[in-house]
Amino acid sequence: MSTDQLAVNTIRLLAVDTVSKANSGHPGAPLGLAPAAHVVFQNMKFNPKDTKWINRDRFVLSNGHACALLYTMLFLYGYDYTVEDLKSFRQLHSKTPGHPESTDCPGVEVTTGPLGQGICNAVGLALAQKQFAATYNKPNYTLSDNFTYCFLGDGCLMEGVSSEASSLAGHLQLGNLIAFWDDNQISIDGSTEVAFTEDVIARYKAYAWHILEVEDGNSDLAGIAKAIEEAKKVTDKPTLIRIKTTIGYGSLAQGTHGVHGAPLKPDDVKQLKSKFGFDPEEFFAVPKEVTESYQKHVESNLKVQKEWEATFAAYKKEYPELGAEVQRRLDGKLPEGWEKALPSFTPADKSVATRKLSEGVINALSDILPEFIGGSADLTPSNLTKATGSVDFQPPSTGLGDYSGKYIRYGVREHGMGAIMNGIAAFGANYKNYGGTFLNFVSYAAGAVRLSALSGHPITWVATHDSIGLGEDGPTHQPIETLAHFRALPNCSVWRPADGNEVSAAYKSAVSSTSTPHILALSRQNLPQLEGSSIEKASKGGYVLKEASKPDVILVASGSEVEIAVNAAKLLEAEGKKVSVVSIPDFLTFDKQSDEYRLSVLPDGAPVVSIEVMSPFGWSKYSHEQFGLSRFGASGKAEDVYKYLEFTPEGVAERASKTITFYKGKEVLSPLTRAF
Amino acid sequence: MSTDQLAVNTIRLLAVDTVSKANSGHPGAPLGLAPAAHVVFQNMKFNPKDTKWINRDRFVLSNGHACALLYTMLFLYGYDYTVEDLKSFRQLHSKTPGHPESTDCPGVEVTTGPLGQGICNAVGLALAQKQFAATYNKPNYTLSDNFTYCFLGDGCLMEGVSSEASSLAGHLQLGNLIAFWDDNQISIDGSTEVAFTEDVIARYKAYAWHILEVEDGNSDLAGIAKAIEEAKKVTDKPTLIRIKTTIGYGSLAQGTHGVHGAPLKPDDVKQLKSKFGFDPEEFFAVPKEVTESYQKHVESNLKVQKEWEATFAAYKKEYPELGAEVQRRLDGKLPEGWEKALPSFTPADKSVATRKLSEGVINALSDILPEFIGGSADLTPSNLTKATGSVDFQPPSTGLGDYSGKYIRYGVREHGMGAIMNGIAAFGANYKNYGGTFLNFVSYAAGAVRLSALSGHPITWVATHDSIGLGEDGPTHQPIETLAHFRALPNCSVWRPADGNEVSAAYKSAVSSTSTPHILALSRQNLPQLEGSSIEKASKGGYVLKEASKPDVILVASGSEVEIAVNAAKLLEAEGKKVSVVSIPDFLTFDKQSDEYRLSVLPDGAPVVSIEVMSPFGWSKYSHEQFGLSRFGASGKAEDVYKYLEFTPEGVAERASKTITFYKGKEVLSPLTRAF
Repeated sequence: MSTDQLAVNTIRLLAVDTVSKANSGHPGAPLGLAPAAHVVFQNMKFNPKDTKWINRDRFVLSNGHACALLYTMLFLYGYDYTVEDLKSFRQLHSKTPGHPESTDCPGVEVTTGPLGQGICNAVGLALAQKQFAATYNKPNYTLSDNFTYCFLGDGCLMEGVSSEASSLAGHLQLGNLIAFWDDNQISIDGSTEVAFTEDVIARYKAYAWHILEVEDGNSDLAGIAKAIEEAKKVTDKPTLIRIKTTIGYGSLAQGTHGVHGAPLKPDDVKQLKSKFGFDPEEFFAVPKEVTESYQKHVESNLKVQKEWEATFAAYKKEYPELGAEVQRRLDGKLPEGWEKALPSFTPADKSVATRKLSEGVINALSDILPEFIGGSADLTPSNLTKATGSVDFQPPSTGLGDYSGKYIRYGVREHGMGAIMNGIAAFGANYKNYGGTFLNFVSYAAGAVRLSALSGHPITWVATHDSIGLGEDGPTHQPIETLAHFRALPNCSVWRPADGNEVSAAYKSAVSSTSTPHILALSRQNLPQLEGSSIEKASKGGYVLKEASKPDVILVASGSEVEIAVNAAKLLEAEGKKVSVVSIPDFLTFDKQSDEYRLSVLPDGAPVVSIEVMSPFGWSKYSHEQFGLSRFGASGKAEDVYKYLEFTPEGVAERASKTITFYKGKEVLSPLTRAF
Repeated sequence: MSTDQLAVNTIRLLAVDTVSKANSGHPGAPLGLAPAAHVVFQNMKFNPKDTKWINRDRFVLSNGHACALLYTMLFLYGYDYTVEDLKSFRQLHSKTPGHPESTDCPGVEVTTGPLGQGICNAVGLALAQKQFAATYNKPNYTLSDNFTYCFLGDGCLMEGVSSEASSLAGHLQLGNLIAFWDDNQISIDGSTEVAFTEDVIARYKAYAWHILEVEDGNSDLAGIAKAIEEAKKVTDKPTLIRIKTTIGYGSLAQGTHGVHGAPLKPDDVKQLKSKFGFDPEEFFAVPKEVTESYQKHVESNLKVQKEWEATFAAYKKEYPELGAEVQRRLDGKLPEGWEKALPSFTPADKSVATRKLSEGVINALSDILPEFIGGSADLTPSNLTKATGSVDFQPPSTGLGDYSGKYIRYGVREHGMGAIMNGIAAFGANYKNYGGTFLNFVSYAAGAVRLSALSGHPITWVATHDSIGLGEDGPTHQPIETLAHFRALPNCSVWRPADGNEVSAAYKSAVSSTSTPHILALSRQNLPQLEGSSIEKASKGGYVLKEASKPDVILVASGSEVEIAVNAAKLLEAEGKKVSVVSIPDFLTFDKQSDEYRLSVLPDGAPVVSIEVMSPFGWSKYSHEQFGLSRFGASGKAEDVYKYLEFTPEGVAERASKTITFYKGKEVLSPLTRAF
């Protein structure tokens, strides 16, 4: 048996043993994809001891359920995994969870499992590579030329999110992306004949991809290698390599969905080992030749990395400014004093929509932060996401921009955009990328947002038209549940700034974040610059905007309702009531403050009423009484809709008065004071 | 000018006047699409005075922002709109909101606006027609043969959800679906060249659609009519008619995104009217010939409906049972006593996963409810959604089923499934359709779920693997924010049943619903049949499972945590504490109960602790203290993960004890008691 074939069989059996030991997992895809994995990794440059080297090739397992394969590869190549890690597959606190998680698994580029996401992340990784290379490469100095490889299955291809990103990848001519479609014709419901009979190849041709086919993916190692070679030659198209495999190859149940998601039977494992020339009684066997062969590949890669380091050192001398910038980005640092560029405001400044204020921040930061790139899902003139004078990220051949462009035209593809943003963030080089759409349509991308939070990608949604305040477009476009949804998502910062200072604070948080995605909910309508706001105060996530001593009631609000609360306070004060007003632009940031600080904002002794023109769900965390919307909005002029739904100073004052009456004589504890 | 051309110009100018009067809206698409709208409506059968006639042709405006066009058509054909309704376009409380809403706008089949949804709804409408026709049509008795027409723009085509449904529609050979792609090459960001350069025609061919093209959609009325004729001839493929139009046709700014989303300038409107042979000073003009011509079409349609009624009357005689069944379904009634089929349980019955209990209900209902159809997004063996012996809904030519089949293989397409489900519900005939996936992946379909709730489609998500209790698959699959998200969505019933009786109650609510979507969150792991539960009690959405008089604490939980709460109560009782346990399987239903009832469940006087293994967000509505997860889950055996996160009787008892101590001596009001 050739060493290559021996390696393939080793991979297969390690993955099978891994799943069997856990008595849980997916052996089918690893058995089918082991040959492709072997050949791809043999063609990749990477350093298992320096997994963040910027010019490594990336590998994305979009069919993340096949992760026993990925862990096996990483283990064999000497990443930070022991055989014990394989043996604790899918067990609590292991490095080898049921689906690969980039936060916990060394060498895993992106978290996958939710189908369709990985291929989109791969598009983002490829996009970022193009942008980084076009920005910094110089004649004779290639700082970036890596490829992104991706495995995906039928499930990924059925998901619409992959259609979105694949269409865009074709448009963007991402020739640095090489994807392998594991065409095994099996999904959980059985044959793909039951639901998936489209012509995938024709579809990807329609997306302007380069198409290759490997007829016998189970054993034609040379064919797979040749396909990679061919793929690399076509530099203006992403490549899809259709690789026909047999799910569970070698198993007695091969080619059926029975091998998809459950361990093989012990007898089946034995015959498999015998068939592949291994000892049927041995587990987790790794022939020395395989280890040596893989070590040799790693060593040659180390040379490649050394050469790159020499190039970068010379680059820094020839291009000291750019070199320092690249180094800064690789160190994950922002430029000294960058935050001074954030605009601040006083009440004398005019009323402006927070989406417009957001545009001001984007303009201010675009000049000083090369890593601050972004775009919009076809709502540029509404989201106001394009910095003045910025160039489109486009293939130069289109005449519409170039690859060093910082503005990405995503098209009407919110979910794809979200997943691509995750890929851009995962590329490294300190990318802080953002994407615009209406707040309501961030929900289309919920699957990707969840993975941003789980993986800790510091991406930013510029989510404009954030409430019924968008007016005429009506309830199909007016968010009600959206903020509750994302506030309930762990590690998701959901800012809803009330004025210019709060917008600046939101961006300060977003851009300086290294591990938390941000959603910035921004108004379509104008809002005044508030007395009592500041970037510093807002940066705490919540603060007292207007303080009364021993207040009868505290009004707490976010975004456009803060102004209403301030005006309601004036009405109440005219009646002799004492009223404090609190602004909470971001729950997550506020929750991270000290108990002492938080209690100073929402102290014992006064009932708290929250005001927000959407679902009150979750606000009882910070308030005793909630004024919100437990209904959909309405199409009409914004001011008519607000009035109809009683989100007016009068409407708020009335509810505050009832609250004061209700709590009179009762002991009132801060909603923050908890039993455990 | 021919009457047809006059009609087209009338439509154009009415739509323009409508947008101008509102000073808000989208004139571009109506100007481009008026010819297609005219020809399609002239080819449709419908009755403006009986908009629910089951065999009407359906029209879906997937590019819902073009609704000035749709309202104009409905007005001209004599649906329940006056010119005053057009004049109050986009104003509060009008019948003509900013995007068409099926609940408020007579003749609007489905709510559209969020891009991509409408074409998927159209797939659902076509699917339902096929299923209804195959179930009830008999030789010489055609009860159903209607077509579904759909307009969609570039935006709809870019959205992944439309890819999902279009792929499935091709697989299902839905020849009764005729879609028009408004190929005007403009979206909000400008030319589609910036982001959307794929070959749409090749893509739809790859989906096995029948493709037609109309080169001059601005004026070739005969060409459009011929295309419809050709489309109808191909009965085993959905048809996509590419119709090249000029956005804002006739305007001075035609062909630019400037006419997309803002009213035309007054001078432009004037020249447009002159150009089209109308008085530039007249507004909302409708030439008599147009009214008469359209009236003639309606009259001929009335004859068609009368013939259908005669056929149905004869059908009822020849097939009395089936006839009665059809009549019952058209009346929107369920069979007398259907709910007796719902299984009930006692504590003596064995522990079963609620997904398995759900399978039992599906089996029980499938036999007696022909309108109860559904499927899964490729997770049939995990969701357990297929009734024993049920036939697949498949084109007969595949040999995999037939069109009277009740089980739909959706493939891995959650968002498409959600939007198709909405279309099936919108067809009428009392369809109660469901779709299965893991709870976590209902989020992929958030855009469609939102429209289910807004439009009041009584569809059901069979959402299994509902928590960290799914175990090894890990945090990528374990919902944390999901229930909070959908509970915050107005008109969305989110059931998380704790045992068999609660599962039956959940289905009772879902199947009898006429206007509320349901999400049933179901466990992967076994749960015991609880002492104190019953279908009747659970049907109130929340109830006292175990009552203590003057309790020291009330534990409230849902789903798998109810059992843990019951066991925690036992531990506390052993320490001499008095503990009530409340189960709240559905917030929405519980909130609809009387104040008196709700206060009997969560009375004043005792602190309430909620227990749910996901985000505690929102539970403070029903509890003083919340035990939940503000973090992601973990990959591991379910029992290990529960233990690690302290969701055990001991972990709950400890928090309950702290709560009792904390509230000792304080006045405790029910969390339901509110100031306003």
